[in-house]
Amino acid sequence: MQDNIEENQRLPRAMGLLTRHHPFHELLGMTVEPRDTDSLCIKFTMRDELCGYPGAGILYGGVIAAVIDIIGGTVVSWSRLEDVKEQPLQEQVDRLKNIGTVDLRVDYLRPGKGKVFTATASILRTGRKIVVTRMELHNEEQRLIAVGTGTYAVG
Amino acid sequence: MQDNIEENQRLPRAMGLLTRHHPFHELLGMTVEPRDTDSLCIKFTMRDELCGYPGAGILYGGVIAAVIDIIGGTVVSWSRLEDVKEQPLQEQVDRLKNIGTVDLRVDYLRPGKGKVFTATASILRTGRKIVVTRMELHNEEQRLIAVGTGTYAVG
Amino acid sequence: MQDNIEENQRLPRAMGLLTRHHPFHELLGMTVEPRDTDSLCIKFTMRDELCGYPGAGILYGGVIAAVIDIIGGTVVSWSRLEDVKEQPLQEQVDRLKNIGTVDLRVDYLRPGKGKVFTATASILRTGRKIVVTRMELHNEEQRLIAVGTGTYAVG
Amino acid sequence: MQDNIEENQRLPRAMGLLTRHHPFHELLGMTVEPRDTDSLCIKFTMRDELCGYPGAGILYGGVIAAVIDIIGGTVVSWSRLEDVKEQPLQEQVDRLKNIGTVDLRVDYLRPGKGKVFTATASILRTGRKIVVTRMELHNEEQRLIAVGTGTYAVG
Repeated sequence: MQDNIEENQRLPRAMGLLTRHHPFHELLGMTVEPRDTDSLCIKFTMRDELCGYPGAGILYGGVIAAVIDIIGGTVVSWSRLEDVKEQPLQEQVDRLKNIGTVDLRVDYLRPGKGKVFTATASILRTGRKIVVTRMELHNEEQRLIAVGTGTYAVG
Repeated sequence: MQDNIEENQRLPRAMGLLTRHHPFHELLGMTVEPRDTDSLCIKFTMRDELCGYPGAGILYGGVIAAVIDIIGGTVVSWSRLEDVKEQPLQEQVDRLKNIGTVDLRVDYLRPGKGKVFTATASILRTGRKIVVTRMELHNEEQRLIAVGTGTYAVG
Repeated sequence: MQDNIEENQRLPRAMGLLTRHHPFHELLGMTVEPRDTDSLCIKFTMRDELCGYPGAGILYGGVIAAVIDIIGGTVVSWSRLEDVKEQPLQEQVDRLKNIGTVDLRVDYLRPGKGKVFTATASILRTGRKIVVTRMELHNEEQRLIAVGTGTYAVG
Repeated sequence: MQDNIEENQRLPRAMGLLTRHHPFHELLGMTVEPRDTDSLCIKFTMRDELCGYPGAGILYGGVIAAVIDIIGGTVVSWSRLEDVKEQPLQEQVDRLKNIGTVDLRVDYLRPGKGKVFTATASILRTGRKIVVTRMELHNEEQRLIAVGTGTYAVG
């Protein structure tokens, strides 16, 4: 993964804030990417380090838990930027500072087999203090591997 | 982290099966270690790649979700080895094959500040098909950072 | 609520097994009803005993938790009858005996205001040992009040 | 159950606010009682209406979900009265108005057999916006039947 500055230049500036380089994402080989003009997803590629039993070709449960939490937080962050997208970068950054997961449920529906995985999230409830999201993890054949529900504190 | 073979030689053989080198653990700098003569914990050290905002010194939510899932699965695996600890290694390995997380809850109680983190788990319910565990993550000052509950399918 | 025998006579026999009179359902004023030709829902009407603060007209959290669990279990039961629908009643009853909730998450999205409430569920994962469902509670204006995810042990 | 006014007169006034008569509690035969001088529990007695299969003597899952949510909310409410216990009743009532469950996990550990059940809760995290609790349901032989974790919005 490289710092995807060029791609970000073609995106709304606020989206770039969320798709920029992050050390933990890089560690796992994850990239936050635009899903469409107004949402984000996370993509990553199968590799041995992400498997429960090296060689078995099935994502480790811990990897799935991590990406489910991260996509939820990313989409919550994106939703919080809604009304500051035209504001100076610092104001956008400030808006993200106090976002954190309160709690999370992950359901492991099928073995994590595949080559390329995509995590998405959608918002179930938006409040001043709390945002609730649903998350999904699919492989490249659109098989649903895991779902989650997360409660995030905001602002 | 190095493959801790020497230490494992002083452990019950079955425990060694769980404390051995694992690529994802290594990626995050986690080691599975004996907690006492009959249980296991996971230890890892703060570093920038594990932070939500590099420099902020607070564990990323995804890292916490991952380690909460992994310690649960590790302790469930350990419990499943109970009656095959004296059996040949292959029988032990076979016993672990079908263990997988069914679902997981993580509660983020305090910001993940600290230098060294320890994850532990205890079993709430043991069944033929299902094992339920409670997990905890503490820092080196014994501050409780996160807890979890996991349902794991076995056998 | 009365024992809805007549209506049941127009339903597949196995569906009648699930829509029949149940003392706890009666206590809360809930009826299990056909949702369409091949699914079930639960309906109930607002009344003071189901409110958190009598007079406030908002469903008590405990009522919502109960109905979310019950609709999940009902739809799981219905799915388990699939291949014994033409079998003798006793065989159908036997099939339902070992179904039980393993764990449940409920998300309270909006205050439980309304006159008539409908709980529905759909199956996310079907296994030999475990069935996972998503549940929803709507009011008569199709406002989504709560959602849930449940893991049920079967057979 | 009767309105336990006399008993309440022996309690701190704020505790009486939570142990008073509630229609849904009465419906299920539940009473909120002092657990010790500074906490509360919920007690209820087995009866046919609370069973999954009348006659089987095992609590219905929906009953367990309800009581787990209610004890969590009750103990959260109690904690919120801490600093207004000497204030006028209306101020106490106002303090409770905006408390609501955000989300809930229930783990069903053992079949709900027994004669008298006691639900308790303890607080894991207290914040300005969010309180997180752990809940337990025991029978009269101190068998642990179910546990839960709940996130409640306050203030």
